[in-house]
Amino acid sequence: MHTTHPDGEAEFLTGLLGAGLLIPCDVPGVYGRSATFEAVVAGIDGLAFAEARRDDAEEVRFPPVMSRHDFERSGYLGSFPHLAGSVFGFTGDERSAFELSGRAAAHEDWSEFQGMTDVVLIPASCYPVYPWVASRGPLPDGGRLVDVGGYCFRREPSSDPARMQAFRMHENVRIGDPDVVAAWHAEWQERGARILGGLGLAVDVVPANDPFFGRAGRILASGQHEQQLKMEIVCPISSARPGAVLSVNAHLDHFGTDFGIATKSGGPAHTACIGFGLERVALALFHRHGIDSDNWPERVREQLWPMLEEAP
Amino acid sequence: MHTTHPDGEAEFLTGLLGAGLLIPCDVPGVYGRSATFEAVVAGIDGLAFAEARRDDAEEVRFPPVMSRHDFERSGYLGSFPHLAGSVFGFTGDERSAFELSGRAAAHEDWSEFQGMTDVVLIPASCYPVYPWVASRGPLPDGGRLVDVGGYCFRREPSSDPARMQAFRMHENVRIGDPDVVAAWHAEWQERGARILGGLGLAVDVVPANDPFFGRAGRILASGQHEQQLKMEIVCPISSARPGAVLSVNAHLDHFGTDFGIATKSGGPAHTACIGFGLERVALALFHRHGIDSDNWPERVREQLWPMLEEAP
Repeated sequence: MHTTHPDGEAEFLTGLLGAGLLIPCDVPGVYGRSATFEAVVAGIDGLAFAEARRDDAEEVRFPPVMSRHDFERSGYLGSFPHLAGSVFGFTGDERSAFELSGRAAAHEDWSEFQGMTDVVLIPASCYPVYPWVASRGPLPDGGRLVDVGGYCFRREPSSDPARMQAFRMHENVRIGDPDVVAAWHAEWQERGARILGGLGLAVDVVPANDPFFGRAGRILASGQHEQQLKMEIVCPISSARPGAVLSVNAHLDHFGTDFGIATKSGGPAHTACIGFGLERVALALFHRHGIDSDNWPERVREQLWPMLEEAP
Repeated sequence: MHTTHPDGEAEFLTGLLGAGLLIPCDVPGVYGRSATFEAVVAGIDGLAFAEARRDDAEEVRFPPVMSRHDFERSGYLGSFPHLAGSVFGFTGDERSAFELSGRAAAHEDWSEFQGMTDVVLIPASCYPVYPWVASRGPLPDGGRLVDVGGYCFRREPSSDPARMQAFRMHENVRIGDPDVVAAWHAEWQERGARILGGLGLAVDVVPANDPFFGRAGRILASGQHEQQLKMEIVCPISSARPGAVLSVNAHLDHFGTDFGIATKSGGPAHTACIGFGLERVALALFHRHGIDSDNWPERVREQLWPMLEEAP
């Protein structure tokens, strides 16, 4: 499914590629990044870190792959089978290896020599957090707050640079009693809008829904939307049409139940997460302030790069 | 193939897990990283960046997946089919999605609902560099020097923390005329030993070979070893047994020919790369200086974290 898009996005992408900020990699939604683009991402990442440190979050990082077994427990494959990426590897002898190699060199199908492994690509940075927190036993008083981030993968090839297959999130995950988690979820809607609005982005806070698969998914999406479980800070990213740059999600007891995370009183914990889409915020800044980050407003540059030597 | 290892490595891993530096993720060779571990990795990354900037390298970053078509051109699947990770995704209708979801929830086989996509996991950071450089036309005078890095994947489950499935490299890639590339390859053997020796690691420079697959692979490995095309800076990483922390590789015209990279005179370019194994250097430092990075020698800490606020 290769989506087409209005001209605004195509023109913006052409500008990014022309300036060398993004580098085409032969596959829609997979790009290389220039040093300047990476400095912008690092600046946004730093702002997210500053918030997490203010809240005394535990920082942890996971690689872009995770346990398939843990992933199967998360329910992701029930909701978003179309977006998941699973990792396959070689299963065979020398004869198969020889055949595989020959077919690959001719760009022919070598999939029959691949078998499913015990790892999958991470679709959002918080997924490995839940089994880790569960493994540490009942929650302490006040629950837990975890800062996490890194490369994620979603199988949605698109020519819109705002919809990459490989992209980074910077997430905070709150795990605890229902009232604590609900208050945190509510607070971050305002807080997220303030942080991103402070970068000069024309943000709005709107109820949203995940792209659940199929007809049954439309019912899930509608319920999520009505209950305002998924709120998004949106702004123009790659065209005038607003898209999510920060997602503020309440999961109720979904992950607490699936992974067996217990509160001190023994009930399933509630969880919520906020996730900055780092490439999306970077793109929104280029879209808003222009392709040359040297000419961005001083107050934006100072926030992204408080230490001069970090500026691109 | 789950390799067993002598006690030293198991004890070292137990110490890392006990100190919370690494976090088990249910799969051998896939770990979460603590903030302290990440600060050590960032310090080593910074040292590698400093060298690249001294040499005026072009900095670029790629995500952990790359074009399958480009990967098929690289010859990796001929040499290392057993280490490659390919990305599969959902192909099917709502009925298949329902079946997939049910099987996944029961931890049963859902591989039949997955088909090969057009992306694979990157096995070493330099792989996306070659098609990119080729796309830019004939090399300029003096060739090119590219700084690249990020998460790589190799399908080799192991309980030795020095052999992770998901790990980061920081690479520099030299592309140009044969004599220029050969001189750079020679220079980095001494330079790499000096940088890593300066961190207090007991380094040695030795000829090595890649883990080519199968019987034919043994001949390739032997030739590579004899011609000293692959040199490694080795030191104890997770046990007394030395392993590679920096790899210095000459590819002759292999990638130049496969990707059609032409020198100014029209012949295929030669290439070489150096790659810091960031997790391996970090582990070697913990192995050498102790599990508590606060107590590492001042001269090591100063090199890793020249700015105080970066220290863990």
